[in-house]
Amino acid sequence: MVSFARGFCRLKFTKAPWSFEVHCSVGSELFVRHKQISAFTSVVRCHGEYSKLLSCYSLLTHGQRRHNSEIPEVDRVKKDPRYDRTLRDARFSKLSNQDLVEFKKIVGDSSVLTEAFELEAANRDWLGKYVGTSQALLRPRTTQQVSEILSYCNTRRLAVVPQGGNTGLVGGSVPVFDEVILSLGAMDNIISFDEGNGILVCEAGCILEKLDSFLAEKGYMMPLDFGAKGSCQIGGNISTNAGGIHLLRYGSLRANILGLEIVLANGQVIDSLRSLRKDNTGYDMKQIFIGAEGTLGVVTKVSILTPARLSSRNVVFLGCKYFTDCQRALKEARSNLGEILSAFEFLDRKALDMVLSHSDGLRDPLPDSKHSFYLLVETTGSCFNHDREKLDNFLEICMDKGVVADGVVAQDNQQFRSFWQLREGITEALSKAGAVYKYDLSIPVPYMYNIVENLQHRLGDLAVVMGYGHLGDGNLHLNISAPRYDSKIFSLIEPFVYEWTASHKGSVSAEHGLGFMKADAIYYSKSPEMVQWMTRFKQMFDCNGILNPYKVLPGSSFKEGSRYRNVSNSS
Amino acid sequence: MVSFARGFCRLKFTKAPWSFEVHCSVGSELFVRHKQISAFTSVVRCHGEYSKLLSCYSLLTHGQRRHNSEIPEVDRVKKDPRYDRTLRDARFSKLSNQDLVEFKKIVGDSSVLTEAFELEAANRDWLGKYVGTSQALLRPRTTQQVSEILSYCNTRRLAVVPQGGNTGLVGGSVPVFDEVILSLGAMDNIISFDEGNGILVCEAGCILEKLDSFLAEKGYMMPLDFGAKGSCQIGGNISTNAGGIHLLRYGSLRANILGLEIVLANGQVIDSLRSLRKDNTGYDMKQIFIGAEGTLGVVTKVSILTPARLSSRNVVFLGCKYFTDCQRALKEARSNLGEILSAFEFLDRKALDMVLSHSDGLRDPLPDSKHSFYLLVETTGSCFNHDREKLDNFLEICMDKGVVADGVVAQDNQQFRSFWQLREGITEALSKAGAVYKYDLSIPVPYMYNIVENLQHRLGDLAVVMGYGHLGDGNLHLNISAPRYDSKIFSLIEPFVYEWTASHKGSVSAEHGLGFMKADAIYYSKSPEMVQWMTRFKQMFDCNGILNPYKVLPGSSFKEGSRYRNVSNSS
Repeated sequence: MVSFARGFCRLKFTKAPWSFEVHCSVGSELFVRHKQISAFTSVVRCHGEYSKLLSCYSLLTHGQRRHNSEIPEVDRVKKDPRYDRTLRDARFSKLSNQDLVEFKKIVGDSSVLTEAFELEAANRDWLGKYVGTSQALLRPRTTQQVSEILSYCNTRRLAVVPQGGNTGLVGGSVPVFDEVILSLGAMDNIISFDEGNGILVCEAGCILEKLDSFLAEKGYMMPLDFGAKGSCQIGGNISTNAGGIHLLRYGSLRANILGLEIVLANGQVIDSLRSLRKDNTGYDMKQIFIGAEGTLGVVTKVSILTPARLSSRNVVFLGCKYFTDCQRALKEARSNLGEILSAFEFLDRKALDMVLSHSDGLRDPLPDSKHSFYLLVETTGSCFNHDREKLDNFLEICMDKGVVADGVVAQDNQQFRSFWQLREGITEALSKAGAVYKYDLSIPVPYMYNIVENLQHRLGDLAVVMGYGHLGDGNLHLNISAPRYDSKIFSLIEPFVYEWTASHKGSVSAEHGLGFMKADAIYYSKSPEMVQWMTRFKQMFDCNGILNPYKVLPGSSFKEGSRYRNVSNSS
Repeated sequence: MVSFARGFCRLKFTKAPWSFEVHCSVGSELFVRHKQISAFTSVVRCHGEYSKLLSCYSLLTHGQRRHNSEIPEVDRVKKDPRYDRTLRDARFSKLSNQDLVEFKKIVGDSSVLTEAFELEAANRDWLGKYVGTSQALLRPRTTQQVSEILSYCNTRRLAVVPQGGNTGLVGGSVPVFDEVILSLGAMDNIISFDEGNGILVCEAGCILEKLDSFLAEKGYMMPLDFGAKGSCQIGGNISTNAGGIHLLRYGSLRANILGLEIVLANGQVIDSLRSLRKDNTGYDMKQIFIGAEGTLGVVTKVSILTPARLSSRNVVFLGCKYFTDCQRALKEARSNLGEILSAFEFLDRKALDMVLSHSDGLRDPLPDSKHSFYLLVETTGSCFNHDREKLDNFLEICMDKGVVADGVVAQDNQQFRSFWQLREGITEALSKAGAVYKYDLSIPVPYMYNIVENLQHRLGDLAVVMGYGHLGDGNLHLNISAPRYDSKIFSLIEPFVYEWTASHKGSVSAEHGLGFMKADAIYYSKSPEMVQWMTRFKQMFDCNGILNPYKVLPGSSFKEGSRYRNVSNSS
């Protein structure tokens, strides 16, 4: 099934194991490519021909076949100056023809992709900001194959980047140079589901939304939810300890993981795939792999506790005059909505304008007046009448106290979804608007919006600065939108944003991880001693450093230090 | 304040930072000791004279001064045959007078306890089953002091056992031989509380119940609760990843820990004391210390997310004919109570009889008929009327479907507490009844009760076998009560219980940890490869093995292997 919305084309495959979001520029290009899209849909029926799918995806996304080697280095540096000071680690081997022969022995010919057009999409991150030059993508179908691939790469000193849905926002899931791409997408089987206790066991390549749809039929739901759910994979979610809109209610993803199967760099399979809610037998080893962004091991299977899918869900969209009002509303929600509160999101006016101007079919739910801030408050419970009574009470209190200026309750499923699209569509809208500098910060709620105002002041007319995010979790998504990537803008943002966050006891990465983008910024949130211990973990689990190099840990934390150019000025 | 209940004397100090539960045998002995109790209360006013408190505690508990060295080895072996095959690790130094001089330099004279009567309580576990022979107990008041102590002990190769409230049930918090006891009890300050977000930062020695009382005034609660709350300390809770009755609702303790400060064996302080709900900057190092039972480092400070204290709580006590009915009731509770379900506990008739016969003032809430199984179902919500409506509906459905035979809703606070005492008082009742063999198992719910029936059959008239626990979490507390410890009974229980649990894909320790009791049983739940990795963690963080030796990891996992006698028959 291919569905079109103007300027945005979403390809959804109900039978095949893949799901893509293909972003095209508005209008003409989309129609120029229309023939390819038609061809594409027919390919879907040829189940398993992944290379053709990738080829079409590449054409759709970039409009032409282009060799990776053609990506000019200067473009990469402009988009992120970290490229400029990162050198390819000379200890890593270069891919040879013999390597490809060996890979084909392990996974079969059709699961080793080497054509540039086949690799285009996997070499490029979702934002098109980070682009690698890998020459090989492998698609194992079993843990044994993953183990054999890694064992081989470890012996050969071939660097590897594990890749899930490639929806990350910090350049963590694409190669920095020529790392072999280990795609988990073909490992997408649901292994078991315990209906009595809501425990799901599945392979790492399962797509989040598909798992949620599967669970819906059983009366359960995934404990995490965010905009990229249609493409991201559970293995990637775990490797990044993904957050999202429901963390407030169901806790972190980490809290819901009961077991993992992990393959280490040397091919050893760590079987920690338990399905028990409680198991205090020794050190909880799997924890260290959650959020390690594929640098310590590759997650291949998952056991996860899923909450019951309660029948009653409501969402309200509120307008507030001041950020302090948003905080007051949060307090009222905690008191009055209590156990049914399931999300508390905020966006500022600039973020709303951004999503409204780039997403057709969406409209301002409060068109009569403009507000500086908007809140999305969601409730989830087991009794509609009780929930509505609590919600009405909450709204009445907020209006009486002047906490919110205006508000509207979603009246049906369509309105429910459209309210959520306003929040979840911001990332995509930003990617359409031009260059975007994205920061994902944990900041104590009272100061959270100060950094947005500070940056608006610093950047003036150079860029549009906006803030949105998970207010209930103290998680701000700070985004700076500009017509194009520009070193002057960058130098005004960094290291200012990181220094400001550190001085307010925040975290420079709340839920996106560090990836390639923020590996050097780790010291703003972690002490040198902590980073040293992390480096020891890395050396213990991956002594040759082949797994997702240049990510998470700064080059300077390794003795070799040879990965990094001696560039002191990051701008 | 000293309050008496027949056969049980609880000493509670409202001003001092300590809280003891002193267990006396019924009647005469209690009155014989009455004079000491009076003396004791006067000592309480002399704030800080810990040695006198301990002295009185020792007298109250054991009736006379007794040197540790007087504990006959044969008694220890009888209570747990693991003593028989465990040798003192010869690499550890023996405590010298010079060591005591150095300790006094670090913590001051009054915080180094060396008299046998002062050490009596700390050398003995709560059940009186595990008894060590330590000659020194240290009570640091700051992280710096903990660091200096460990640094000194590490250099001197003195083994150390970190001790919180010493309420553990697997011999994890007492010395096995002459380890120096590092008590965290004097580090009991609340450092900060963020009222907006419910984030509590405190020292490791804070008593769980005191933290909960503190939070109650702020409208929050601790996310964990269990019988030992009046004595256990948050540092110990974290080191054992303690479970309890509310895990079902608020998740594991691990899930609620935002930050830790940890002191490593060499004295290095790991500062991971963040107060952010989200922080994905590198590997989450603190996770490995949660549930490590003090074998990798000593937890000194804690940052913890606490849930709102909702106003409406209800509890029902239900009688069921079959264990399958209990499971059906759980399913109905999940569907019909949804978001307000906060505990789902079960006990069998033998467990109820045990608690009723050893706890004065408690009575059977369903006296008209006897049932094979009883359930305690608790709800917690923000609106009493809504909760009662849901609860009534749940009960109606259960009665209509014949899932429960009888039931009663607690009508007031007193009844609420007395229902809970029936569940929480079982452990104490068992300790009064004689010898007790305790097992804490995670087993898939459908098979959970089979092991109880199996053991009843195996043991016949030799002992009383009973089962109770956290049904909602698949966590069975299997208890075997006998007049005295007996090697024949032991040989009928172990390794049968562990083998049965392993063959049903369960865990040999759901929430109690491994401690000394189950260190050798780790292989029933973890693969040799996993244990090998754990050993590497141990060697990385504590290369001399001074922290809580003989616990968690089996002696055979260390190359030296010298800690264990070559005894193949565990009976």
